[in-house]
Amino acid sequence: MTVSLGEVQAAAERIAGRVRRTPVIQVAPGLAFKLELLQHTGSFKPRGAFNRLLTAKENGELTGQGLVAASGGNAGLAAAYAARELGVPARIFVPVTTPAPKLAKLRILGAEVEQVGNEYAEAYQAALQARDESGALLLHAYDQPEVVAGQGTIGLELLEQAGMFDTVLVAVGGGGLIAGIATAIGDNARVIGVEPELAPTLHRALEAGQPVDGSVGGVAADSLGARRLGDIAFTATRDHDVRSLLVDDDAIVAARNELWRDHHLAVEHGAAAAYAALASGVYKPAGGERVVVVVCGANTDPTTLS
Amino acid sequence: MTVSLGEVQAAAERIAGRVRRTPVIQVAPGLAFKLELLQHTGSFKPRGAFNRLLTAKENGELTGQGLVAASGGNAGLAAAYAARELGVPARIFVPVTTPAPKLAKLRILGAEVEQVGNEYAEAYQAALQARDESGALLLHAYDQPEVVAGQGTIGLELLEQAGMFDTVLVAVGGGGLIAGIATAIGDNARVIGVEPELAPTLHRALEAGQPVDGSVGGVAADSLGARRLGDIAFTATRDHDVRSLLVDDDAIVAARNELWRDHHLAVEHGAAAAYAALASGVYKPAGGERVVVVVCGANTDPTTLS
Repeated sequence: MTVSLGEVQAAAERIAGRVRRTPVIQVAPGLAFKLELLQHTGSFKPRGAFNRLLTAKENGELTGQGLVAASGGNAGLAAAYAARELGVPARIFVPVTTPAPKLAKLRILGAEVEQVGNEYAEAYQAALQARDESGALLLHAYDQPEVVAGQGTIGLELLEQAGMFDTVLVAVGGGGLIAGIATAIGDNARVIGVEPELAPTLHRALEAGQPVDGSVGGVAADSLGARRLGDIAFTATRDHDVRSLLVDDDAIVAARNELWRDHHLAVEHGAAAAYAALASGVYKPAGGERVVVVVCGANTDPTTLS
Repeated sequence: MTVSLGEVQAAAERIAGRVRRTPVIQVAPGLAFKLELLQHTGSFKPRGAFNRLLTAKENGELTGQGLVAASGGNAGLAAAYAARELGVPARIFVPVTTPAPKLAKLRILGAEVEQVGNEYAEAYQAALQARDESGALLLHAYDQPEVVAGQGTIGLELLEQAGMFDTVLVAVGGGGLIAGIATAIGDNARVIGVEPELAPTLHRALEAGQPVDGSVGGVAADSLGARRLGDIAFTATRDHDVRSLLVDDDAIVAARNELWRDHHLAVEHGAAAAYAALASGVYKPAGGERVVVVVCGANTDPTTLS
């Protein structure tokens, strides 16, 4: 499965007015941030969620059963938010281990929350089963064309907002964000993935020649903790020659604190990963290189900032 | 003393490229935020500081002695930052009670920090004396025409960025920000001041018919704790019919938590005051009224957010 630039452009038209065109700020000579943490629900995920739901609506695939999704994190919040905005019922499956505040956030957005199993995989299976039994629409967290195309609208905005740039640094979990952005940016700039050493889905896929399951851990696991790269992401990153850089947890924690201290941005660990590649020196821009960092999520506990 | 629209426009030209044109985001129908907390040093203060310094430079008033200022807060940070960017020495006077992290921030920016007296007033007197003895330029925190004109550039940006709007809500401490914005906005929209009940400088000035000293306290005292309204601010707010609304500390704390929870903005208490007027119902917009809230500062301890 692949996603085309045309699909990203169609997504941008489809979700216009539903999502925020998030600002880009220049933070230093040659360095800009795309402030996607200011998106509705505090992450980029509503872009894909709206595109998936609105496409299904256009195609008559959305029944009174609404949508099902599996996620206690950003994807779940986005699913619940988009469903509420479109007047669609949402059932979100999460592991029983999901913390109460996350459950509360989903319920405040009007979603029906079902706790199933100890791991994400079990919640996901329950969501698939619910889809099969009810005819509800499945909203995947990253591996659906409409989802990837929706996330890609960030890339189209960057081309309009950021002036000329050479490089975009993007955090990678399941790969929906980087796949969309790479598709949107095409040959206009280099797109580089940044992953936690303890959850390197793209790195593993590039080594193995295909997405493979792997262990997941570390400080950013709540947002970048997919067990394997999505198939669409694998194709898109291969087609666009996307490299993967690894950052360790210390670098992520330091970058997150630096984003707060120096830039007044309170971000989740996963969203600090891309900046961590720069701040730790894992990525060293050439002289005069113009870099954009996508700062993609704010769902964090601010009391852990220092 | 007054400040004219022409002076604000000249300030905008003078400081262009030195300060960020901070983004405006639409957060709900009829409600937008000007994200001035993303300004350099985390508050609006660099606008006035740059305008004061650059004007003095143009006029040959800036000697090798550089600038002096009195503030351990946002005004001090902005003074140190602007001085560093322009290669000007900065001496910042602060009370001995100033917390160590604030001293460190000023020193990281290259300022020479002098601790004098137990209260701000003593530090300010020391700054005046240093100016008189050395010929250094005094940068006042709010009551200088160049400073007010610099802060007013926020108003010019709003007129360009925010589409049509009816009302701007602005926090008031010494009044430099609201004076500048009221001058810039003119008859294009209503400008309303919001003050903590425990530090109501504009309210007291309007009652007394002139700026008067008053006690200062409450959660927002670190940024809105001026003892009296500036003379320029008094004239500007009178000329532009600016009203003052009062919010209590509970409303400020609740608004600050809401800005974090619902909008992913970690702000200082003073910067939550303007939004508090809306969130607490002290200001009730009419049907269809389009309101802009200036979110003006991020220098806060994020561990106190909930």
